[in-house]
Amino acid sequence: MSRKHAYPHGENGIVRLLESRYPAGAGVERGIGDDAAVLGPEPEGEYRLVTTDMLVEQIDFRREWAPARKLGRKAVSVNLSDIAAMGARPRFFTVALGLPADVPRSWIAQLYRGLTEQGNAFGASLVGGDLSASPSGIVISITLLGESVGRTVLYRSGGRAGDALYVTGILGRSAAGLRLLQGGRPLPNRRAEREAVRAHLEPEPRCEAGMWLCQCGMVRCMMDLSDGLSADLPRLCAASGTAAEIDAASLPVFREAAAWGFDPAALALDGGEDFELLFAVEGARSGQFEKMYPAHLPPATRIGTMIRGKGQVWIRSGGGRGRLLGNHGYDHFRPKAE
Amino acid sequence: MSRKHAYPHGENGIVRLLESRYPAGAGVERGIGDDAAVLGPEPEGEYRLVTTDMLVEQIDFRREWAPARKLGRKAVSVNLSDIAAMGARPRFFTVALGLPADVPRSWIAQLYRGLTEQGNAFGASLVGGDLSASPSGIVISITLLGESVGRTVLYRSGGRAGDALYVTGILGRSAAGLRLLQGGRPLPNRRAEREAVRAHLEPEPRCEAGMWLCQCGMVRCMMDLSDGLSADLPRLCAASGTAAEIDAASLPVFREAAAWGFDPAALALDGGEDFELLFAVEGARSGQFEKMYPAHLPPATRIGTMIRGKGQVWIRSGGGRGRLLGNHGYDHFRPKAE
Repeated sequence: MSRKHAYPHGENGIVRLLESRYPAGAGVERGIGDDAAVLGPEPEGEYRLVTTDMLVEQIDFRREWAPARKLGRKAVSVNLSDIAAMGARPRFFTVALGLPADVPRSWIAQLYRGLTEQGNAFGASLVGGDLSASPSGIVISITLLGESVGRTVLYRSGGRAGDALYVTGILGRSAAGLRLLQGGRPLPNRRAEREAVRAHLEPEPRCEAGMWLCQCGMVRCMMDLSDGLSADLPRLCAASGTAAEIDAASLPVFREAAAWGFDPAALALDGGEDFELLFAVEGARSGQFEKMYPAHLPPATRIGTMIRGKGQVWIRSGGGRGRLLGNHGYDHFRPKAE
Repeated sequence: MSRKHAYPHGENGIVRLLESRYPAGAGVERGIGDDAAVLGPEPEGEYRLVTTDMLVEQIDFRREWAPARKLGRKAVSVNLSDIAAMGARPRFFTVALGLPADVPRSWIAQLYRGLTEQGNAFGASLVGGDLSASPSGIVISITLLGESVGRTVLYRSGGRAGDALYVTGILGRSAAGLRLLQGGRPLPNRRAEREAVRAHLEPEPRCEAGMWLCQCGMVRCMMDLSDGLSADLPRLCAASGTAAEIDAASLPVFREAAAWGFDPAALALDGGEDFELLFAVEGARSGQFEKMYPAHLPPATRIGTMIRGKGQVWIRSGGGRGRLLGNHGYDHFRPKAE
């Protein structure tokens, strides 16, 4: 479950209900509640993973923002990101499509082109699907199967107080791109605008980084950032039985957004769909980790520390403990303030 | 792919396009084009299977026809039927839900109750999912994972001219139930009406029969009947490189529908969602097969024979070769005549 957000009456509540009612059964190492389900182990110790994500027109995308091929790539990337977050390797995927009558055949062909080229780029082949009519918008529902590298999988639940918190890449860039698209500006031509729109329409799943982080032996828990740090970090903490404090000045924000009248820090905290990785490293090994982290992977930035607590996240912008972070990330099931 | 129908501009055309462009890759025994994809084999020879089916409100169901729990059961059954059609064992499933804002929390809870109780009844546990807002109707997208029993899986493609064709159960009963529901009659109280409506709202996937048929060693090809015999039998024949002739008098029709002004034979041929199994047995072994077929399974009725040809289906109602069967089964992507 991802791309959605927290707290009592939102999706988290429904997920908690499901977790408690439908605990993992035989052959299920981890069921509902992480980025992907973990099945197995196999006789040789490997695990199988499965994740599913649905994109709905008008909610998750607009047809006029991107050609079908890019939309196909993004639909797969969203799922690849969930497998990346477990440190696993993508293998196969299926696509169920709901299509209104006005969608031309060429659009469908381009969508499949995007789906398969992005899948293939990350080692996942299209193996099946379903086509259905849809009375209103397009619905794209993908299920991605993966496998562990060796016997190791990273969960949300392995963090402890004292662990150092990191994120890959830049936060809030995708949200800046979304706002540019929503503002209906003409096709962006400045470099930063192109970069932001691209981050939103063509997110790059962090599969290689995810597998390295899983195999390096220093990472204790991980998830992908789909709903924004303010929504996702409390989930990581809650799963690990910790709280966290983060340092506002350390966040790898998308500074260029300030020139467009947006607040880069707010976008980094509350903007969704960055699809970067959020993870915790044992505090005593953070120096070693930073030395070993490969230069060719998207940069890993230390943003704070796990502390004792129950899922709260504090943000410091100067001295003191700072303020308790509200949850303004994206929730499909909570009325919007904006 | 299933619950949809045939011929150039319909879903079959899209499926053929996909089959040709995206052939099965490494680790894929069978990709797009059968009831489920077949992955593997595993080191010990078993296969993994995966199938996906999407139900869309107003297209595949109406909220007022059945409580959420029954809808949940049916959504799983449609997928279980695809695994049954390969002769495999269901194991795990995921559910992606698109939900309009007006769906109450209690409805969602009942839907999950139905999903999980039907999955559990057939050995498949819910392991994950996704929740998304939906601007109009409810969308339920399920992906079901299964595994072969030993090393054997039944495809659509194994039939040969001379094979005897069989179906399980009764054909056209679900379509009769759908018409009763569409007619908006008050809740049915006669036995036959209840039976028809139940066949439509609560189809029983033929998992046990499918596994027996796969293991008995006499069945050469199999699929499930989701779109009606007139749509599905040509698919079985095309995959096997054969044609077929069937005997109208032999069809296990739902005779009670005649009392409601429906044509039982037309419902048996063109009605969808029976979710019975259609399969072929080597002609010379049909007598042996009929003797061995277990009495506790839904009855298997011989309806015709595979002959040389290219997917055509002839129907005899007296002497001679009979008429070429048109394709009136259900297709999401073909304009409706009715």
